[in-house]
Amino acid sequence: MENKKRRGILERLDAGEVVVGDGGYVLQLERRGYVKAGHWTPEAAVEHPEAVRQLHREFLRAGADVMQTFTFYCSEDKLELSGNVKTISGAQINDAACNMAREVADEGGALVAGGVSQTPCYVQSHNETEVKAIFKKQMDDFLKKDIDFLVVEYFEYVEEAVWAVEVLKTSGKTVAATLCIAPQGDRHRVPPGECAVRLVKAGADIVGINCQLDPMTCVRTVKLMKEGLEKAGLKAHLMIQPLGFHTPECNLGGYVSLPEYPFALETRAMTRWDIHKYAREAYNAGIRYIGGCCGFEPYHIRAIAEELAAERGFLPPASEKHGLWGAALEMHTKPWVRARARREYWENLLPASGRPKCPSMATPANDGLTEN
Amino acid sequence: MENKKRRGILERLDAGEVVVGDGGYVLQLERRGYVKAGHWTPEAAVEHPEAVRQLHREFLRAGADVMQTFTFYCSEDKLELSGNVKTISGAQINDAACNMAREVADEGGALVAGGVSQTPCYVQSHNETEVKAIFKKQMDDFLKKDIDFLVVEYFEYVEEAVWAVEVLKTSGKTVAATLCIAPQGDRHRVPPGECAVRLVKAGADIVGINCQLDPMTCVRTVKLMKEGLEKAGLKAHLMIQPLGFHTPECNLGGYVSLPEYPFALETRAMTRWDIHKYAREAYNAGIRYIGGCCGFEPYHIRAIAEELAAERGFLPPASEKHGLWGAALEMHTKPWVRARARREYWENLLPASGRPKCPSMATPANDGLTEN
Amino acid sequence: MENKKRRGILERLDAGEVVVGDGGYVLQLERRGYVKAGHWTPEAAVEHPEAVRQLHREFLRAGADVMQTFTFYCSEDKLELSGNVKTISGAQINDAACNMAREVADEGGALVAGGVSQTPCYVQSHNETEVKAIFKKQMDDFLKKDIDFLVVEYFEYVEEAVWAVEVLKTSGKTVAATLCIAPQGDRHRVPPGECAVRLVKAGADIVGINCQLDPMTCVRTVKLMKEGLEKAGLKAHLMIQPLGFHTPECNLGGYVSLPEYPFALETRAMTRWDIHKYAREAYNAGIRYIGGCCGFEPYHIRAIAEELAAERGFLPPASEKHGLWGAALEMHTKPWVRARARREYWENLLPASGRPKCPSMATPANDGLTEN
Amino acid sequence: MENKKRRGILERLDAGEVVVGDGGYVLQLERRGYVKAGHWTPEAAVEHPEAVRQLHREFLRAGADVMQTFTFYCSEDKLELSGNVKTISGAQINDAACNMAREVADEGGALVAGGVSQTPCYVQSHNETEVKAIFKKQMDDFLKKDIDFLVVEYFEYVEEAVWAVEVLKTSGKTVAATLCIAPQGDRHRVPPGECAVRLVKAGADIVGINCQLDPMTCVRTVKLMKEGLEKAGLKAHLMIQPLGFHTPECNLGGYVSLPEYPFALETRAMTRWDIHKYAREAYNAGIRYIGGCCGFEPYHIRAIAEELAAERGFLPPASEKHGLWGAALEMHTKPWVRARARREYWENLLPASGRPKCPSMATPANDGLTEN
Repeated sequence: MENKKRRGILERLDAGEVVVGDGGYVLQLERRGYVKAGHWTPEAAVEHPEAVRQLHREFLRAGADVMQTFTFYCSEDKLELSGNVKTISGAQINDAACNMAREVADEGGALVAGGVSQTPCYVQSHNETEVKAIFKKQMDDFLKKDIDFLVVEYFEYVEEAVWAVEVLKTSGKTVAATLCIAPQGDRHRVPPGECAVRLVKAGADIVGINCQLDPMTCVRTVKLMKEGLEKAGLKAHLMIQPLGFHTPECNLGGYVSLPEYPFALETRAMTRWDIHKYAREAYNAGIRYIGGCCGFEPYHIRAIAEELAAERGFLPPASEKHGLWGAALEMHTKPWVRARARREYWENLLPASGRPKCPSMATPANDGLTEN
Repeated sequence: MENKKRRGILERLDAGEVVVGDGGYVLQLERRGYVKAGHWTPEAAVEHPEAVRQLHREFLRAGADVMQTFTFYCSEDKLELSGNVKTISGAQINDAACNMAREVADEGGALVAGGVSQTPCYVQSHNETEVKAIFKKQMDDFLKKDIDFLVVEYFEYVEEAVWAVEVLKTSGKTVAATLCIAPQGDRHRVPPGECAVRLVKAGADIVGINCQLDPMTCVRTVKLMKEGLEKAGLKAHLMIQPLGFHTPECNLGGYVSLPEYPFALETRAMTRWDIHKYAREAYNAGIRYIGGCCGFEPYHIRAIAEELAAERGFLPPASEKHGLWGAALEMHTKPWVRARARREYWENLLPASGRPKCPSMATPANDGLTEN
Repeated sequence: MENKKRRGILERLDAGEVVVGDGGYVLQLERRGYVKAGHWTPEAAVEHPEAVRQLHREFLRAGADVMQTFTFYCSEDKLELSGNVKTISGAQINDAACNMAREVADEGGALVAGGVSQTPCYVQSHNETEVKAIFKKQMDDFLKKDIDFLVVEYFEYVEEAVWAVEVLKTSGKTVAATLCIAPQGDRHRVPPGECAVRLVKAGADIVGINCQLDPMTCVRTVKLMKEGLEKAGLKAHLMIQPLGFHTPECNLGGYVSLPEYPFALETRAMTRWDIHKYAREAYNAGIRYIGGCCGFEPYHIRAIAEELAAERGFLPPASEKHGLWGAALEMHTKPWVRARARREYWENLLPASGRPKCPSMATPANDGLTEN
Repeated sequence: MENKKRRGILERLDAGEVVVGDGGYVLQLERRGYVKAGHWTPEAAVEHPEAVRQLHREFLRAGADVMQTFTFYCSEDKLELSGNVKTISGAQINDAACNMAREVADEGGALVAGGVSQTPCYVQSHNETEVKAIFKKQMDDFLKKDIDFLVVEYFEYVEEAVWAVEVLKTSGKTVAATLCIAPQGDRHRVPPGECAVRLVKAGADIVGINCQLDPMTCVRTVKLMKEGLEKAGLKAHLMIQPLGFHTPECNLGGYVSLPEYPFALETRAMTRWDIHKYAREAYNAGIRYIGGCCGFEPYHIRAIAEELAAERGFLPPASEKHGLWGAALEMHTKPWVRARARREYWENLLPASGRPKCPSMATPANDGLTEN
């Protein structure tokens, strides 16, 4: 473990290893009572460190090789906007979040990634200097701490993501950049292939997609990025951390446009078996940094690690409490439950919703509009 | 708070207060990586106390007035059967579980309830002496600790539950007893009204239903218990801790008979808005001890506490991170999401499954058979 | 054929034969452009005899042993209410309808049944003399023609049906009586068993259920009638002509309470394979007069005749144009369609709706009320 | 009427009139007991002329301006293949079909169109001379009769359709040509725009789409045809006669690839209100010959005529038996049914399937393959 711990993200990816990412923090901590929906800001890092630390630990135990700092939307402009952060500064949150990520990462040889996300400032001012100053500030917070690499994530516009990459590259750290866009492109309709090219040219070592759309859709988008890079003769590692919900009817607007967002998404949640398929599909697409975003709970991360156990050479600690493909059910008292202790059963199951008065697809808000 | 803390469960119920129960431990801890499905035994109390403690804390924060000890299926015969407990004894688990429940309960004036559940021994031997000895052993573990009252829960047969009540009453503690049965009756088809009468005659102070079927169905069953008691001229407080999944097609066999059990139940999960309706319905039925079982996460418990905030006179701590009826969305950047910051929206939403190739109802195993 | 033709309905039923009824006229003729929904009156018998005659012929060809006269809702009070019958009298309709039924019946050895249905007068006046006079008038029209037996059908109240039976029995003809009620009973909650007893005591030779609820539900109701008769030591032949739509959420109010009634019922239509199951179930329940009502098209009647071909000893003429269980597909040009030429395929198919934004169950109007 | 009758199809279309087509014959006659699925050949024209004539009449009455001869798949090679035509020749069928179409058309000033469809010979031999000889033979049959124009319909390959147009144009008659293809193109992936150009260059006066995919999808395909013609500087009238079923999951393979084809399509059937939307959409797309194919029953054709009544200046005869937008329900005895007598109700209704164990979407056979 000691050895592995010291090896950086690029060493691992360059060696062809599968790196398992962690899951989603804000939605899960909202359900646990520590994050406020709508704002989604991470003041819990200071207010309730035990809750954040516990979730880190669950992801680690599930097989995550990276702990992302709980610093989503932790730019000063966003914190101000949210209005619910009065006495806690962004710097405090960044500091606390880095400490916790490091502490838990060290329990299992994982890496720590400091993450920056899109800013309200970009949409409002479109001022490169101002936006870059925000990223610089957060990066400086990270650089005071023991961070392994940096992640630019949840950007709807590639232009802003490029700015973030340009700032973060000045740190000398490895930079990963993921957009939250659809196969149709970013919100300005810049196609994924072109987005990837711009990010790599800006200095990103790893590019890909996170959040907003379901796993299979995100794999498609990453494939388009890969094709774009290949056509441009560029190289980068590929990364994916998709949404943990089924969103077949979503397009550019992502899951935020669904009527169920954010308080009635339960029915759309991925099962662990859905995740097995996703992990395999992502792996087959050549993606080697595979995690999850909103909706990914610890057991979903474990499913990635279990699907790719042969490729990685080991199972995660949490698999001690999980028979592969339901094997633990062999001990169940009911014979018809014991009969479910096999891969074929779960792989082919089409789970019923138990909600006969609900439809299977919704009409997204602003459906079909250019900017939803 | 200090005052409230000292007041026992019966004092609270006798005073007409609403007591909010906690949610489900084993399913949630399975997803977090600490409990093995199929066995569902609670060795995590010893192995990973931080994980159990954190979940207790989340339920407390969500408004729970009772911390149930994490001792489900913690009878020696069950632990042996499960085979995955080698070096940890039931006594150790009971001890650790009581400590944690007490520790967290004291953080918020909650009560601690020591819980016993049905035994494999009953079905196998049907030997009253042996079964009672098992309950006695676990009770003795509890009585060494600072426990407020005892809960007999998850019994498919009223006969075994009556035995448990008889044993636990010897402690002099208040005893609550909940069966996991359908409106049609227990697995021997003893009707709920008759079950309630037997439990109260055996000494139960509080009776009701837990697990196995969805909230509205469980409310129906508790109503039948209430009617049975009234007809018999008996009195007892009513309690409910239902399943957190929609199970419209289940009968006697409960959700264990569903094809999705236990690894593909996501689509059936209750939303917080479903829980509002349930809490109101339970309250209207005269039930005053209202909690949840498998599938109830902290935000579901918070929804009970929020629905009954007026009746209880206060909101739970976790409501700081939750605008009632989605009010927090008023700050969202997308106008169509802001439009969801109102009760009418969420109350009437019929959430789509996002799974157009899945049905809305399944065929339960052993459907229609007497003993499923 | 000649021989069979002369044999009456009771002779056939007494001999243990399966009598196949015809299907629904008004809904089908509405779709063909000849009947007005809401009114559902049968003036097309006079206005467009070729259309009515053709539908009779299709049912005959599909295997029907009985042609019911197209005289539904053809009481003078109903015709007046509907307002769209000005120059055509009930007598004219009855006359024309009897002629056509006879003409087509004679093409295939079928019997002709003159049908009377419930009257607006009953609900409005509750006056036995007036209501009976209406039945008498229509019966007198029938008796002028060559009618084999009489049918009392589509009665929501057993009391009114009893009055009808009492009138019709004065003709000396065999009388069949079917109510359009749920297993819970008629609109006054008289249970099916009790309804059957009253009808038989009034003189009905054949009793059963028609319309309003789906086939399997109607079979259940007829079974309850049978049990009632057995308990009372009475005997009668059993008859069933259910609705041709799936109505799992309907109770007392029947399909009229569904939001889709009457212009969006397509999705609920029975497939021919649903009908196979129904015909078998009805047969197994001891019912020997098996047909259909609203929603039953000619191919549904053919499915009854095909399912019971072994019991009846022959296939209907329309089976020349139908391979059993899809056998005709063996010749299809696409291999995957040829693969469907087998019973197992169709028996197990769960047809998709192609409507992902639609639910699978609706909320009936006046759901749960006593009188919906 | 006399005047209108004499005016040809091009005169009508050139004058900007909306021409309403008829609906589907083979599927409907299969359900009525006269056509065998799998073969779908039209020998009923000879065997049961009264049934075919009646269906013609219903379409006429519903507002159809054109009677297509019941000659689908009536090429000698197809009839032979089907094996169920022994003693009836193609010439006999064509003759009888033309007579009936003419007879009924004359009852309402409609036009008669003689139709030819794709041949097995094309796929097997790909021999232009042989295939053209087949079309010539059928055309010669038509030219002996009083036919107004010719229709080339249900072609999966534009190449074969072009051959058919080339043959039929030698008659001097107006020729309409519709392919049964998806927006992705014909089975060789020739895009719709290119298909339209080839058909018009071959001499087609009217081009468009028929069958295989649902109305809205077919409108999209016709729009692509229109764009192709515009780019090529060509002009032609546009025509559409789509499938009457919802097929959201179908691509190139059309509805034949659905598991429900052809014996369990009920759930997918269009309601009349779906047709209103389709008719408006088709009209708005500039299409002026608007009808239906398989699945279109008389009431669907009436819905086209009712939606476009203002544009056409009159309602069809069958509207006498139909209140617009459910107006006839104003007379219903149940108040909640009377409440449905308004456009808004039906326009917004999402009909439930009544089949909670069925999914809303299926997996088409050969899904995603090039040649399904």
